[in-house]
Amino acid sequence: MKIIILKENLNNGLNIISRITGKNLTLPILNNILLSTDGNFLNLSSTDLELGIKYWSLAKIEKEGKITVPAKILTSFINLLPNKKLTIEEKNQTLYIDCENHKTQIKGLDAQDYPIIPSIEDKTFVELDAAVFCEGISQVVDFSTSNQARPEISGVYLNFQKDRVQMAATDSFRLAEKTIYFKEKINKECSFILPQKAAREIINILLEQSGKIKMYSSPSQVLFEYSMSETNHPQVQIISRLVEGDYPDYQGIIPKKYEAQVVLNKNEFLNQVKTASIFSGKGNEVKIKIDPKKEGMEILSQNPELGESKGVVEGEIKYNTEKPKEMEVNFNYRFLVDGLMNIKSQRVSFELNGEEGPAALRPAGDANYIYVVMPIKST
Amino acid sequence: MKIIILKENLNNGLNIISRITGKNLTLPILNNILLSTDGNFLNLSSTDLELGIKYWSLAKIEKEGKITVPAKILTSFINLLPNKKLTIEEKNQTLYIDCENHKTQIKGLDAQDYPIIPSIEDKTFVELDAAVFCEGISQVVDFSTSNQARPEISGVYLNFQKDRVQMAATDSFRLAEKTIYFKEKINKECSFILPQKAAREIINILLEQSGKIKMYSSPSQVLFEYSMSETNHPQVQIISRLVEGDYPDYQGIIPKKYEAQVVLNKNEFLNQVKTASIFSGKGNEVKIKIDPKKEGMEILSQNPELGESKGVVEGEIKYNTEKPKEMEVNFNYRFLVDGLMNIKSQRVSFELNGEEGPAALRPAGDANYIYVVMPIKST
Repeated sequence: MKIIILKENLNNGLNIISRITGKNLTLPILNNILLSTDGNFLNLSSTDLELGIKYWSLAKIEKEGKITVPAKILTSFINLLPNKKLTIEEKNQTLYIDCENHKTQIKGLDAQDYPIIPSIEDKTFVELDAAVFCEGISQVVDFSTSNQARPEISGVYLNFQKDRVQMAATDSFRLAEKTIYFKEKINKECSFILPQKAAREIINILLEQSGKIKMYSSPSQVLFEYSMSETNHPQVQIISRLVEGDYPDYQGIIPKKYEAQVVLNKNEFLNQVKTASIFSGKGNEVKIKIDPKKEGMEILSQNPELGESKGVVEGEIKYNTEKPKEMEVNFNYRFLVDGLMNIKSQRVSFELNGEEGPAALRPAGDANYIYVVMPIKST
Repeated sequence: MKIIILKENLNNGLNIISRITGKNLTLPILNNILLSTDGNFLNLSSTDLELGIKYWSLAKIEKEGKITVPAKILTSFINLLPNKKLTIEEKNQTLYIDCENHKTQIKGLDAQDYPIIPSIEDKTFVELDAAVFCEGISQVVDFSTSNQARPEISGVYLNFQKDRVQMAATDSFRLAEKTIYFKEKINKECSFILPQKAAREIINILLEQSGKIKMYSSPSQVLFEYSMSETNHPQVQIISRLVEGDYPDYQGIIPKKYEAQVVLNKNEFLNQVKTASIFSGKGNEVKIKIDPKKEGMEILSQNPELGESKGVVEGEIKYNTEKPKEMEVNFNYRFLVDGLMNIKSQRVSFELNGEEGPAALRPAGDANYIYVVMPIKST
């Protein structure tokens, strides 16, 4: 293999594909990346056997070939080079890199030993707006959890229907669901559980891209692809195994009504929760209190050793009963903070169902996102 | 005690004085800060028994008094408040804070139990430019080291003479010395060893201040003071114990001549050292090579398992011998990086004294800073 490539092009690719390498002690070749020529492109690939990433970069190919080298060494080295042309050559499983005043040799391993990243046969795909899709996943991904007893909730559930995709994640204490409606109906209905790590990498790699991504799927795998706008050739592919099992029927958990609804400023609410958290105890408990005789919503906490805090957030309160009465509900303050942090709008609707019923947070006036959280039962 | 104070004023003070609190398990009162009224000011104090910080803030004093409360709780709480007026009141060793929609009580301890931060009797002082002095210390402070066997090198040595102050620090592998000349002669000569932690806090707190600071000293303590420009009242005082013992006579270690001098671009040198470091072994060893028959300075490293790197930095080389010959000197790359990072100029003078003699780095054409580093002896 012998190629000529701009430092910046190589660097961009390495920064993306080296994200999943370098943590495997039992199979050291997984700490490597695979460089191979592919037509007019240099292809870079990495895999951790669950997740694979491929990146293509335009290059001048003088001689075809392939090699695998340690990701960390190549990435650190290329990163430090000036932004000039590099000559990269493979000889006897060693990679020779020449750039201005630098000459380097990196010892590699035989490309034949590198694991094959499987492809997907089915050529039908769903086209998605990269930024909208990634922002949607980012609003739920944190609530999936690595749960060995219940692997099915260790990922994000994606349910593609004709006119929308629903994304859900839960750790059994709270649940978030995001719905994105499509402008045009899609010709592929499917649902699957995407591992949390793959979901995070999709966000990290594709969120900043403008334009469309394509999604291909099979019963055991999913592939997300982003193409170069000039050539329409794929630039990045992220291929992930899916989590096996059936996702729990979570729709029953989402409350369909509420006893009281408070619409308030998100940042004021967040700030008051954080303030109260300073005096919360080991259970991270803060108390939410509304009273038909009073304005606003109170947030309270008390710690016999440290002191206490009492804050009021102004808001419009609507009761759904004929005889509204005072309500005190306890929450883990971290769960409130997490939910509020994932709501993008300035005003938030907080829906309460008494001391023990599930509460919900939504962007005010927006039915496409909901965060459900269980209160802490009072003892 | 009852005072009215702007949130921002209190916050600024807390951020400064709470830096040294909150890490003491044996004497819990040291996790607290002391609030006390002082004329028209609120005074905030903290100490770890080695180092004390006092901060004054203008406030409306309605009732005099004092109290100590946990630094972390007060600081976190005040930080979250809106930027409004606060009413702060002490009753029965509890601090009551009222601010718009927040009401808080923080349990405190008796101010009588708070350790007294000693003052300095001698009223003669040295006036220093805050930014120049702090930048000077910052160029040497990292090279002092917590060495229990040799406590005298655990701090920064400051030697005030009539027309200059010399600052030095060493960890016995390398040494840095900075000299600052005064515009006007000072009337106080003294020298002492300032603990590394105090030096770091002086930099953190005073580097951003414009104008002058005053330094007072006694045989066992030193005090740095910054005053408010409007009232000339002290705003911050940092009081530190001094390290006991005699600082080693380090002047003998500074090489007075060189066998070869290379003047080169600092960032290119730094980049080439970092590149070579990728292939350095456990000893962090990189090789510097100059050859009268070749242009520039070579930086080399080799690792039998990973590969090798060879870089050239352009520079002017001057030999101090009649028959100059090839020179190869090995260094710990971290020591070269540390030295280069503390040089502010674009061009650096690298002075070599063969395989085993001390090498020096200086800003090119500036005799007021020197970094001395010993080579790794070749085996």
